[in-house]
Amino acid sequence: MNMTLSTMEPDDVSSGTNSHCVEITPVEAQKVAQPPHRSTLQKLKTRLKETFFPDDPFRQFKGQTFNSKWILAAQYIFPILQWGPNYSFRLFKSDIISGLTIASLAIPQGISYAKLASLPPIVGLYSSFVPPLVYAVLGSSRDLAVGPVSIASLVLGSMLRQEVSPSHDPVLYLQLAFTSTFFAGVLQASLGLLRLGFIIDFLSKATLIGFMAGAAIIVSLQQLKGLLGITHFTKQMSLVPVVSSVFHRSDEWSWQTILMGVCFLTFLLLARYISMRKPKLYWISAGAPLASVILSTILVFAFKGQRHGISIIGKLQEGLNPPSWNMLRFHGTHLGLVIKTGFVTAILSLTEGIAVGRTFAALRNYQVDGNKEMMAIGIMNIIGSATSCYVTTGAFSRSAVNHNAGAKTAVSNIVMAVTVMVTLLFLMPLFQYTPNVVLAAIIITAVVGLIDIPAAYNIWKIDKFDFIVLLSAFFGVVFISVQEGLAIAIGISIFKILLQVTRPKTVILGNIPGTDIYRNVDHYKEALSIPGFLVFGIEAPINFTNTTYLKERTLRWIEEFQEDKVGKKKSSIKFLILDLSGVSSIDTTGVSLFKDLKKALENRGIQLVLVNPVGELMEKLQRSEEARDLMAHGTLYLTIGEAVAGLSSTLKAQSSSPV
Amino acid sequence: MNMTLSTMEPDDVSSGTNSHCVEITPVEAQKVAQPPHRSTLQKLKTRLKETFFPDDPFRQFKGQTFNSKWILAAQYIFPILQWGPNYSFRLFKSDIISGLTIASLAIPQGISYAKLASLPPIVGLYSSFVPPLVYAVLGSSRDLAVGPVSIASLVLGSMLRQEVSPSHDPVLYLQLAFTSTFFAGVLQASLGLLRLGFIIDFLSKATLIGFMAGAAIIVSLQQLKGLLGITHFTKQMSLVPVVSSVFHRSDEWSWQTILMGVCFLTFLLLARYISMRKPKLYWISAGAPLASVILSTILVFAFKGQRHGISIIGKLQEGLNPPSWNMLRFHGTHLGLVIKTGFVTAILSLTEGIAVGRTFAALRNYQVDGNKEMMAIGIMNIIGSATSCYVTTGAFSRSAVNHNAGAKTAVSNIVMAVTVMVTLLFLMPLFQYTPNVVLAAIIITAVVGLIDIPAAYNIWKIDKFDFIVLLSAFFGVVFISVQEGLAIAIGISIFKILLQVTRPKTVILGNIPGTDIYRNVDHYKEALSIPGFLVFGIEAPINFTNTTYLKERTLRWIEEFQEDKVGKKKSSIKFLILDLSGVSSIDTTGVSLFKDLKKALENRGIQLVLVNPVGELMEKLQRSEEARDLMAHGTLYLTIGEAVAGLSSTLKAQSSSPV
Repeated sequence: MNMTLSTMEPDDVSSGTNSHCVEITPVEAQKVAQPPHRSTLQKLKTRLKETFFPDDPFRQFKGQTFNSKWILAAQYIFPILQWGPNYSFRLFKSDIISGLTIASLAIPQGISYAKLASLPPIVGLYSSFVPPLVYAVLGSSRDLAVGPVSIASLVLGSMLRQEVSPSHDPVLYLQLAFTSTFFAGVLQASLGLLRLGFIIDFLSKATLIGFMAGAAIIVSLQQLKGLLGITHFTKQMSLVPVVSSVFHRSDEWSWQTILMGVCFLTFLLLARYISMRKPKLYWISAGAPLASVILSTILVFAFKGQRHGISIIGKLQEGLNPPSWNMLRFHGTHLGLVIKTGFVTAILSLTEGIAVGRTFAALRNYQVDGNKEMMAIGIMNIIGSATSCYVTTGAFSRSAVNHNAGAKTAVSNIVMAVTVMVTLLFLMPLFQYTPNVVLAAIIITAVVGLIDIPAAYNIWKIDKFDFIVLLSAFFGVVFISVQEGLAIAIGISIFKILLQVTRPKTVILGNIPGTDIYRNVDHYKEALSIPGFLVFGIEAPINFTNTTYLKERTLRWIEEFQEDKVGKKKSSIKFLILDLSGVSSIDTTGVSLFKDLKKALENRGIQLVLVNPVGELMEKLQRSEEARDLMAHGTLYLTIGEAVAGLSSTLKAQSSSPV
Repeated sequence: MNMTLSTMEPDDVSSGTNSHCVEITPVEAQKVAQPPHRSTLQKLKTRLKETFFPDDPFRQFKGQTFNSKWILAAQYIFPILQWGPNYSFRLFKSDIISGLTIASLAIPQGISYAKLASLPPIVGLYSSFVPPLVYAVLGSSRDLAVGPVSIASLVLGSMLRQEVSPSHDPVLYLQLAFTSTFFAGVLQASLGLLRLGFIIDFLSKATLIGFMAGAAIIVSLQQLKGLLGITHFTKQMSLVPVVSSVFHRSDEWSWQTILMGVCFLTFLLLARYISMRKPKLYWISAGAPLASVILSTILVFAFKGQRHGISIIGKLQEGLNPPSWNMLRFHGTHLGLVIKTGFVTAILSLTEGIAVGRTFAALRNYQVDGNKEMMAIGIMNIIGSATSCYVTTGAFSRSAVNHNAGAKTAVSNIVMAVTVMVTLLFLMPLFQYTPNVVLAAIIITAVVGLIDIPAAYNIWKIDKFDFIVLLSAFFGVVFISVQEGLAIAIGISIFKILLQVTRPKTVILGNIPGTDIYRNVDHYKEALSIPGFLVFGIEAPINFTNTTYLKERTLRWIEEFQEDKVGKKKSSIKFLILDLSGVSSIDTTGVSLFKDLKKALENRGIQLVLVNPVGELMEKLQRSEEARDLMAHGTLYLTIGEAVAGLSSTLKAQSSSPV
């Protein structure tokens, strides 16, 4: 060992080679291990598992008896069986408090969001009764509070109104809303069942922040109708028609409505601000909407506000959810629209529900299985569509209140549902005089939280391209339409990824003096290139989209490299060392890169040397007849250091006898 | 230096650390260099250059005087100015021989391919006259022989026939064909001008092989009409209707036609076989089509074949290409179809033209600029559409003959064009008695070469997934339709890439004993994991599509790793070392991975350690407030070896005082 080192010359590049602490023969040094043989079926199995079961949900079943497998399976499908038996009065005390708190939020929000979707207010309450009960049985999150949400309500309404007017044809509109909910549920449950949950990952953070901010603006603008008391309002959603409608209808503005709206909006925003500053005072913002509804209803009732131009909800039907499976329409001209609406709302509500579930699971350190949650949310919506509910999911604001109020299990959802049930059965007449302006104020307060400027600034700081995605989502939603804005942003995000794949990163590596480490010369100023060698790293999978580029780029690197040292003779590079450590996969088009490159380099008098082709790459190169000779002795090394060391002697022999 | 080594214990992991040949303090070892600061604009410039100018076509202009820049620019646009001044009689001798050879192939192929596109035969000859002249001026390949090709002809015909019948409305059909050609040209030229040439890279080798084989089958089946002498033939393209049509019309089979067809087909295939075995005899397969046409025409004329049920071409118009710009239709009901047809044929013909150009450029060791070639082919088609030509490109069979016949420059294209011109002016009446069955035989012989079974077998051997893509292209074309088969195959290919991005490879690394090298433990059996550490490598860009997966997968690796060693206590892992060398880029969603992971690991009592974050990654982590504390002292190392060495001491101190 010491012998090797003592014969070293200080500037000899080969001396730094990794394995030189151990005496090795050149043949040993070049040994790149073969990946263990696996059949196509095995590989397919691994790949399918990685794609669809990355979280390996069945691991817990391994090594269990038949009976306990049954119990585990039942617990897997119905998480209530898991925590139910251990449920205690102590837990119930926490759950009843949090359940009542979220109910006080759920009732005004339910009515408001239903109006956002142009549905009768009572549908919002129906949707806060059945779905939470279903989720309590099927869901695995302990913090999620279920109900209608603003984004899905907005999108459902704006898409359905394209074809059907809720005021002219309310029954058809309601049918389409329930059918959309049904399709949304079927899609959600299928995504979960088919383990395709990763589809929601295609909504990047930047897309979501831009989209939500845009949606918040659009929703708030829509509320100007209620806030100003305008009766003839545009049906369009985007900025320009809404603003022009507001100012064209200034004769319809009602000062009584505006005064009431401004007061309650200030109160609600203040309550929100206080709770944000002091999370312990969560009950202020949680209770404010209900307080506003009660107070405003009393005011209107006392002063006969409806006679002074303040519009009120009006008479509401009493009673629990009527069945609605006979209202599902699977035929007719609107089927396409209904499926599309179901699809978009399904993805959006899943995104919110799963993100909320994961956030609180991380806070309390338990796991949420995304795909299983999708099935729970999907089944909840399917059942909902048959019981007069529209699209529901885990709502962010409501879940945050639930968490802060100390919810321990899904029982808080049951408490909320029971409270809503009592309201539906006995308290509906009380809402008759609730003014619409208060609902508008509640909606605005809820959506203002969707505008996340610090997060947007953070994205601007980190990645300018992501910020462009954010802006395109935002402006797309504000100026074109909610669904098109979303589509544009997703399209740009995917295009960016494809572009990244098409133009993978390639780096020139240099030796860090005194070590055996090779690093990017652009990044490490001290990294030096070794005369006669060009060390070149590819840091991406090689496939059909980038094979041509990689070949052209490699040849250009060589030319640039030789031009840099214009003093030296043109043939200064003798070896191109290709570090393949970063190439995680390759396809058949990619395999031809090496053959083509070898040929092109030979014409230039340069030898191609490969370093560290990993697993799949090694395997495929060997299976290809054309590339196999590249794996011959002297052209394949385990590390760059070994390659440089092994080839330096060849180079020296060459340079001593000038050609 | 020797001191360090002499104090080493043989089994001490830290002893193998890379930089230990040089004495270094721990602080030095942990130094990961900052990437040099570059402004957003600089980065954008680099990215745009890599995306659109990877071949750096303007490099030659650097450091030139103003005048020579002008000359270089003119030579860049019109390559004829580059080789023209040096053109010699010796080169011309070679070019005239190859030009005449390809003309003898171009004339029968032109007529045949025009029939394949359901166009009048003479349009095929027109298309072999003007486009070669344009290409001779603009093109940079010396071997490309230009003219109509089978695939583009097939697709053009099959797409246009969807809406317009060439027999019922021949003028409209012709107008649509020219307009499609115009759009194809505009698209091709724009792709070149906008440097978007990489779009054709999205047609992978597997897709192309499957598609071409399928198209060859479809084309050959269509020729059964001519080969069997059937007059009432289906207009559909896919396998089932064609075969059923052949057998339902067995009463129309003409034995004279069949006999003639079989004879000439045998002759042509034999000629092709001979030339393939002995490339020097290229002239046999090059001359065979013309010989067949002449021989069969004489036979029909002598025996009055047309009276015995042998269908003939019939009277052809004499004269050069009439102008056709007045036939371009930019309005009306068929505009969508025409644009779509133009788009598909543009991409297909570009793919063939560029691939042929690159193949022969590589053989003769000169460079072809893909984007410039696209502009040349595009302008050729725009001019063609105004002079009664349909889509043309560099044809593979014809270029191979051109190359084998010794073509030196694009002058061989001019010679071919002049020969075709002479034919158009004086020899057209001679083709009156040419039987259609011979054209069918010529087409079949040409397309048989598109079925590349060895290449398909090679793909099967190397990559099973690519083979699935190949099969789906093949069966899609054969059983559904030409364009849908192509679309399906491209869709699957892109889906595969997205899936790869969504599910990037992660590997557990182990130390190769006696060295400082860390390698995949699945791949290198001798690689050992180090107690207390889990060394984990991510080999892909981290972005919004895979952040969730990577987090879940990492946590699963930890659980699996701890379960393997079930004998040891649960807390056997103290450090998770994340090797980020393979992470070439990251986006804002990806940045949150590290923060989330750190939190999740802390709950498990594991410390997260990062190794070698490169350029962009390092930069973005530092710009993100949340992730910045990850870069603190003791959690960031340059190599895995250094990290293990640095942390082992911490671990030993911990384990000596059991918790």
